[in-house]
Amino acid sequence: MHFASDNTGPVHPRVMQALAKANDGWAMPYGNDALTEAVVAQVREVFEAPEAIVMLCATGTAANVLLLSTLAEPFETIFCSACAHIHEDECNAPEFFTGGTKLTLVEHVAGKMSPDALRRAIEGEGNRGVHGPRRGPVSITQVTEKGALYTLDEVRALCDLAKSYGLATHMDGARFANAVAALGCTPAEASWKAGVDALSFGGTKNGLMAVEAMVLFDPAKAEELDYRRKRGAQLFSKQRYLAAQMQAYLDGGLWLEMAQSANANAARLAAGIEAGGGRLHAAQESNLIFADLPRATHRRLKAAGAQYHLSGSLDGAGDEMLEARFVADWSLSEALVDQFIALLKA
Amino acid sequence: MHFASDNTGPVHPRVMQALAKANDGWAMPYGNDALTEAVVAQVREVFEAPEAIVMLCATGTAANVLLLSTLAEPFETIFCSACAHIHEDECNAPEFFTGGTKLTLVEHVAGKMSPDALRRAIEGEGNRGVHGPRRGPVSITQVTEKGALYTLDEVRALCDLAKSYGLATHMDGARFANAVAALGCTPAEASWKAGVDALSFGGTKNGLMAVEAMVLFDPAKAEELDYRRKRGAQLFSKQRYLAAQMQAYLDGGLWLEMAQSANANAARLAAGIEAGGGRLHAAQESNLIFADLPRATHRRLKAAGAQYHLSGSLDGAGDEMLEARFVADWSLSEALVDQFIALLKA
Amino acid sequence: MHFASDNTGPVHPRVMQALAKANDGWAMPYGNDALTEAVVAQVREVFEAPEAIVMLCATGTAANVLLLSTLAEPFETIFCSACAHIHEDECNAPEFFTGGTKLTLVEHVAGKMSPDALRRAIEGEGNRGVHGPRRGPVSITQVTEKGALYTLDEVRALCDLAKSYGLATHMDGARFANAVAALGCTPAEASWKAGVDALSFGGTKNGLMAVEAMVLFDPAKAEELDYRRKRGAQLFSKQRYLAAQMQAYLDGGLWLEMAQSANANAARLAAGIEAGGGRLHAAQESNLIFADLPRATHRRLKAAGAQYHLSGSLDGAGDEMLEARFVADWSLSEALVDQFIALLKA
Amino acid sequence: MHFASDNTGPVHPRVMQALAKANDGWAMPYGNDALTEAVVAQVREVFEAPEAIVMLCATGTAANVLLLSTLAEPFETIFCSACAHIHEDECNAPEFFTGGTKLTLVEHVAGKMSPDALRRAIEGEGNRGVHGPRRGPVSITQVTEKGALYTLDEVRALCDLAKSYGLATHMDGARFANAVAALGCTPAEASWKAGVDALSFGGTKNGLMAVEAMVLFDPAKAEELDYRRKRGAQLFSKQRYLAAQMQAYLDGGLWLEMAQSANANAARLAAGIEAGGGRLHAAQESNLIFADLPRATHRRLKAAGAQYHLSGSLDGAGDEMLEARFVADWSLSEALVDQFIALLKA
Repeated sequence: MHFASDNTGPVHPRVMQALAKANDGWAMPYGNDALTEAVVAQVREVFEAPEAIVMLCATGTAANVLLLSTLAEPFETIFCSACAHIHEDECNAPEFFTGGTKLTLVEHVAGKMSPDALRRAIEGEGNRGVHGPRRGPVSITQVTEKGALYTLDEVRALCDLAKSYGLATHMDGARFANAVAALGCTPAEASWKAGVDALSFGGTKNGLMAVEAMVLFDPAKAEELDYRRKRGAQLFSKQRYLAAQMQAYLDGGLWLEMAQSANANAARLAAGIEAGGGRLHAAQESNLIFADLPRATHRRLKAAGAQYHLSGSLDGAGDEMLEARFVADWSLSEALVDQFIALLKA
Repeated sequence: MHFASDNTGPVHPRVMQALAKANDGWAMPYGNDALTEAVVAQVREVFEAPEAIVMLCATGTAANVLLLSTLAEPFETIFCSACAHIHEDECNAPEFFTGGTKLTLVEHVAGKMSPDALRRAIEGEGNRGVHGPRRGPVSITQVTEKGALYTLDEVRALCDLAKSYGLATHMDGARFANAVAALGCTPAEASWKAGVDALSFGGTKNGLMAVEAMVLFDPAKAEELDYRRKRGAQLFSKQRYLAAQMQAYLDGGLWLEMAQSANANAARLAAGIEAGGGRLHAAQESNLIFADLPRATHRRLKAAGAQYHLSGSLDGAGDEMLEARFVADWSLSEALVDQFIALLKA
Repeated sequence: MHFASDNTGPVHPRVMQALAKANDGWAMPYGNDALTEAVVAQVREVFEAPEAIVMLCATGTAANVLLLSTLAEPFETIFCSACAHIHEDECNAPEFFTGGTKLTLVEHVAGKMSPDALRRAIEGEGNRGVHGPRRGPVSITQVTEKGALYTLDEVRALCDLAKSYGLATHMDGARFANAVAALGCTPAEASWKAGVDALSFGGTKNGLMAVEAMVLFDPAKAEELDYRRKRGAQLFSKQRYLAAQMQAYLDGGLWLEMAQSANANAARLAAGIEAGGGRLHAAQESNLIFADLPRATHRRLKAAGAQYHLSGSLDGAGDEMLEARFVADWSLSEALVDQFIALLKA
Repeated sequence: MHFASDNTGPVHPRVMQALAKANDGWAMPYGNDALTEAVVAQVREVFEAPEAIVMLCATGTAANVLLLSTLAEPFETIFCSACAHIHEDECNAPEFFTGGTKLTLVEHVAGKMSPDALRRAIEGEGNRGVHGPRRGPVSITQVTEKGALYTLDEVRALCDLAKSYGLATHMDGARFANAVAALGCTPAEASWKAGVDALSFGGTKNGLMAVEAMVLFDPAKAEELDYRRKRGAQLFSKQRYLAAQMQAYLDGGLWLEMAQSANANAARLAAGIEAGGGRLHAAQESNLIFADLPRATHRRLKAAGAQYHLSGSLDGAGDEMLEARFVADWSLSEALVDQFIALLKA
């Protein structure tokens, strides 16, 4: 009953097989290998973007900050929601890799920025000449850190707004697979067709060992990103092992299959939580659920070994509702979800 | 006949098995897993350093620059040989991660700095008050980028000299295993007992997929390194897979076994090259060999599919000697070496 | 009738005389001159801090960011009010000079942070391990960017709170003179005796040409600040001219005299604005006043040549109240203030 | 007898008068004043460059590093002589302001790079793909730190070479006035007509208090430089006082007059040193002279109060020749030079 994170489950067996298969003979290092060449072509095909720049790296933070440093000047500010991963969970890596940009925090609901909130934030910066920072790129997390899903129209509206100010757009797609699965659209529709210039295409949270693809839909900055990746200590010598993971991820749509399973189990879990007296913060839209449950219930669940993030302490006299985060990943089974729900209702 | 790099061979089967074994069930992310805890203890034991700080990361560049940024202030200069990997092959990553230190290049023979050369370099800096940079750490590569080996006394002399100026010492040990194997000493003797404060303990070049251990023998900077690793985008969510590799590496001395094999094959190769009319730049001491061979010989070898770095062009009328670099890794077999030698002598 | 800024007035005649007097013969460069030595001693005496580190630089931004970069690690966050100059008006210089810290914005009233608001901000950071930034220094602007004055007890409360978390404290004292004049306390009471570790002691906004003193009350970081000043391009070769200004500033209490005059004229102006139908945002406490006046009044004042910052447009049909900022500096005369008030009431 | 530095003499009286004259009434801050507007036009006229970007700052280091940070990407390397001020005397400020570029040191004679030496340096970088830094701008110091003068043809040859690699060119013109005076050419000929893209046009070393002009001959990067200046803490609030100095400097050719005087006194001094038994390192070409004199002579000169940089110790038994640096600035008189020469010959 492991709902703590989408980083706790195992790597998908087909990915492990791909690694084993890649472990054969010699291959040129630093991306000059056949697997890397193949996977770049494959990502381009999946995204219907034959000229896109595709480079692999190993952590979500790396993908985000390398792309942002390619889009932003150090005297600019990056617009993102106040709960964005790049603000909350990357220990100043964006400030570091960009050479000192500021992040301007945008109001949000469950991590989603509205065009109005974004416009207010943009208007609030870039209006003091050189005294304040210049306006820089807009970063959108899809699905958000709070589990919410932007519709394609909503993404397009934010990107259109950014473009109306001449600003580039970045999508933190650590859970891009879950978004595409939930939206039922194509990867192209969820990214460049909606106005996204640069995408962190996540793999690690969805069944890979440690691979993300950086996708720049405008090839003009290819060389810069290449140098920045190396300078950022993210150019892997034995890159075939990153490529092998990404290849297995895309082959036969495994990435979507895993995301669909995770989303479905999250839906099952959400229904169960509600049926069991829990209060969902919002309708389930992805593989993340935030819900309140009574303290006594939490005590029982935790005692039985359920793992999830809990805000607040199990100790305490009263029986208030305490907030929890539940994450479903590809490796979760219906049986495990049902076991948890049974425990909850017990 | 692949002698191009120690990054071209496959991962050792026992490492692959360890990865497969680690891929079981759930584990807490970001290093809060049992495997990581175990491997930290194991590294400490191997190095007889129960208080050392041990953190994993995924590239050699990352290990070097995270450690150096922990040792150096941005207004200092780092002393290293003019052919040091941190100068030649890391695309300004040291300057970036340290916030702008300078590298002061020290004269060397085959990558080895003498105490005299290092002293001259140190004396040449830090003597202009705040106008020049302050003296910072000394970085020593063992084995060097040119395949040379420092004796323990030589390492100690450099470290003693650094200490006499109050400077910290770093060892780029991308090929530390080859050094220990060649020196026949303990890991502790090759590092902290010789005066090394911080070690980049390489794994990737010696049979792992992508893991290096950063070892700080003085625990005072533990928290700083921890933050710097995260900020440097090198904290892996699914860290058990890094830990599993390092564990397999150390278990039963696999790391030394692989390095011994690589060194031995390099020795066999060196002898064969000499016997075949090649001119070694220096006596073989590790798994790297630099040698000159006639252009015609290179043509023949390359035509037969031998892979190695060649300085100069195969085209050209004359039959000058052209320099080549040959690297032996764990995966090379005596048979392959002999096949190459036979070809060379043919 | 110039109320636009405390940067628009002339330099005080005694400062100009001091410059002329300093312009005699040769003096060693880079601070190795007798005037610099004398002024360091003088600042220490004024602050009753015989061991304080005193270094001169030329812009308020420089003083702030050099001090902050000495107090903060790049993986930390600096706590400041949401309208702090370091956030609003320094174009990412703090992020740049510190190597990438974040600024955590604290709720404020007229630029003043309450201990509660600061505590909430501190509690909201440094609670995510290495995922978020580590807690760094607290920066307090006295008087605030909105013209408000912290009492000594209020400063002490903020500093005590910071210290209870082990955090260093910085005071942006661009208008420190106005604060000391208004508080009627000693410089020591307004700074280190209230818990301030590092002070940007402003001169430029109060009658100097371009000099600020950086004062570090703890001498431990003296060498670091010295290197950072040079690296930050703020070590002046002909430093006697900076020293001469600061000396004239302190001689005979000129700095307080000018600040008192500015504060008094601001008080006169505030009374006049209120009497003339304006609405003060708060009681006048320093040399900055924020007030609302009807649009028609603004039109009349501007047409007559009055200079001040106006939020909103003079055009427009209605006669809403529009916000304005009025600044009094040392060079303003009662006569000019009265001329403005007369115009206002006309 | 003050030959220690061109930073030790007083400010020219006409500059002091200009400052006094500028100190009248109110002026808008941050460069929005009439004097700044006038001086920008004046610099453009002097350089026959009506579209050039002209911005003022206060230290030579600031001018150099702000310009270089505008020309270089952080993953590039800057080519400069091994004795360049940006390498030797700016405490990592170039590395800091550029975000971590490397400096590639070029062989030189008396600070002058030959096209061959520069070509070798360029060829030695940018040849390792993303492993090494990308080639960045070339920085030329005119006159050099060793007092040597490039001919116009020599500057042009270096710039042409840089351009043939697509690299931008920067001139550190801390002593640009001395160069133009010595070359007898126009400022345009000495800069953009010879291929210079960006010029640090020095004033401080030649009679000003603290002003340098940054001149970008290509206006494309105007906005970037503007933001970088502010972010670099070099935008002065009371900028009229910088503008006034630069205006007085250019008015009536004062800048050239001062440089001619300095050069002439250096020539007189050089002749006297030679006549007095000293050994010049090279023919005098500017206001800097390097010469060897016997230790006993140095003892006598220093005892008599002569001030200059001496390499080596006055103590010691032998009477070797010891190297000294003599600098002539605008404020030196023939009488003082003659007094020194008389002392030398005594």
